[in-house]
Amino acid sequence: MSEKLSDTARETMLAPLFETGWAMAEGRDAITKTYKFEDFTEAFGWMTSAAMWAEKWDHHPEWSNTYNTVEVTLTSHDVGGLSSRDAKLARKMDAI
Amino acid sequence: MSEKLSDTARETMLAPLFETGWAMAEGRDAITKTYKFEDFTEAFGWMTSAAMWAEKWDHHPEWSNTYNTVEVTLTSHDVGGLSSRDAKLARKMDAI
Repeated sequence: MSEKLSDTARETMLAPLFETGWAMAEGRDAITKTYKFEDFTEAFGWMTSAAMWAEKWDHHPEWSNTYNTVEVTLTSHDVGGLSSRDAKLARKMDAI
Repeated sequence: MSEKLSDTARETMLAPLFETGWAMAEGRDAITKTYKFEDFTEAFGWMTSAAMWAEKWDHHPEWSNTYNTVEVTLTSHDVGGLSSRDAKLARKMDAI
């Protein structure tokens, strides 16, 4: 379990993510990003890798997929907003 | 390629699906269903099986996942509405 991000942690953890295309979700303490892939196979293959990490870390995304597009939203329901686990999963998703 | 469903085909193909929990999507010529699973692993495992069929048949869902819930919407973009491919994929999704 981690805590809701402090203002200082937001600066250090979220700023680098905003540079890779993550943004604050509208009206929520959550971050969101849209990934585009070559086709469905690439998109779902990426989701499968991300799903393994999500399950391993017991921290799951809200996400939707239409053909080659995957929209991801990350937040920590147990703390009612963003925690360091969201930043960690976001970095992993960018790295995959 | 298939055609947009005729009124008669709608009766015969969609009626059985409406009995298993599918419904017309709000404001679209599309069908939608929400599947609930035990947990994330079950939900994503089901998505993976469904993804194989979607790719095999080159007919892909719009779907979103939050933990143990998967919301699916099916329509045929190339015909601008429902085709027999949507009914076929819906039946497969129920069967998996």
